[in-house]
Amino acid sequence: MAEKEEVKLLGIWASPFNRRIEMALKLKGIPYDYVEEKLLDKSPLLLELNPIHKKVPVLVHNGKTILESLVILEYIDEAWPHNPILSQDPYERSKARFFAKLIDEQIFDAGFVSMARADEKEALVEKTRELIMHLEKELVGKDFFGGKSVGFLDFVAGSMIPFCLERGWEGMGLEVITEEKFPEFKRWVKNMEKIEIVKECIPPREKHIEHMNFMVQRVRSA
Amino acid sequence: MAEKEEVKLLGIWASPFNRRIEMALKLKGIPYDYVEEKLLDKSPLLLELNPIHKKVPVLVHNGKTILESLVILEYIDEAWPHNPILSQDPYERSKARFFAKLIDEQIFDAGFVSMARADEKEALVEKTRELIMHLEKELVGKDFFGGKSVGFLDFVAGSMIPFCLERGWEGMGLEVITEEKFPEFKRWVKNMEKIEIVKECIPPREKHIEHMNFMVQRVRSA
Repeated sequence: MAEKEEVKLLGIWASPFNRRIEMALKLKGIPYDYVEEKLLDKSPLLLELNPIHKKVPVLVHNGKTILESLVILEYIDEAWPHNPILSQDPYERSKARFFAKLIDEQIFDAGFVSMARADEKEALVEKTRELIMHLEKELVGKDFFGGKSVGFLDFVAGSMIPFCLERGWEGMGLEVITEEKFPEFKRWVKNMEKIEIVKECIPPREKHIEHMNFMVQRVRSA
Repeated sequence: MAEKEEVKLLGIWASPFNRRIEMALKLKGIPYDYVEEKLLDKSPLLLELNPIHKKVPVLVHNGKTILESLVILEYIDEAWPHNPILSQDPYERSKARFFAKLIDEQIFDAGFVSMARADEKEALVEKTRELIMHLEKELVGKDFFGGKSVGFLDFVAGSMIPFCLERGWEGMGLEVITEEKFPEFKRWVKNMEKIEIVKECIPPREKHIEHMNFMVQRVRSA
């Protein structure tokens, strides 16, 4: 079976939505072919596999296409149940899913828009901080969101906040997420940085910031 | 165990996000207390249980709060595994989740905005039709999205499209979703209308249209 499996991931190196999929595949030890896409020149294969959204990540597993990063993470956990990334407890699963949705919809949007639009920046940075405070509370007494070991919500939050939005490019405003005000969150970031598979998936800092500045300019001039 | 269970649902009668939860609870045969909320005067309980979004539906199960309708549906399927609403197959599950997300994010938004903003209406109605065409293709050769029996995506799509957006209040534009162009979708709607638990969850037509017109006026005047 293992020899015949086709696992292909179409991604963009700087995308938090893509990096979380790589973390999960690495945690499960699943070999995969990685295909780097270009943000401004998407491949015919990407457009064919994801005609509705035309976005990465796209996972192809034995000819089947799975789309949307949170859906892909759940798929990975179900198709390869070893080293689970979601708890077996329905309530814990529901919390992980709730916060993952919050991060992707509200924290990502607020973080991104706050960079692009000066007039809305202050309110959005404040909103982002409030949202991250909910994560702070979730982390009390825990090494990772799921408890002792890294998993679903760690990958979602990690790829988006400390290893993307919070990397501190000019004017982002998240430098106020200090150790004093967010001790649990900061402790969690340090725990994440110790995990080998996470380290492998964090984009190089300078190159990443350069890429994000380019994205901001595109949004501003759109 | 059954006697001790507390299952409470905070909802608003016209909300598609709420109606889908009721469909799932009824399919599973789970008794629940229903608490009707007011759109413009939310209860202290709702604000306490859902401080981030301040929205229905909210499910309370033995003191635990579960939020966000798609998350609640998954919780219901995991906490009460009988009469499953999601397939056991990871790929089928991923498709149901993908389309559910598409409906809630894009079809709902496009449908709602198209009513409220005349300048964007035509493009958004066209987009809605294109998105519903993807559902049309999914339904070929099937009675319901999951196959022979009603389930997760039927509840999500049903509560949102035929029994909400498509009910045909003035100017919505979805009257072009005809039997000629969308035969599978229309056949599916008829199948849905035959299901007793679905019928129980469809709001009364005239009252529903009146409510939606009120919502449109609120958005227009905001």
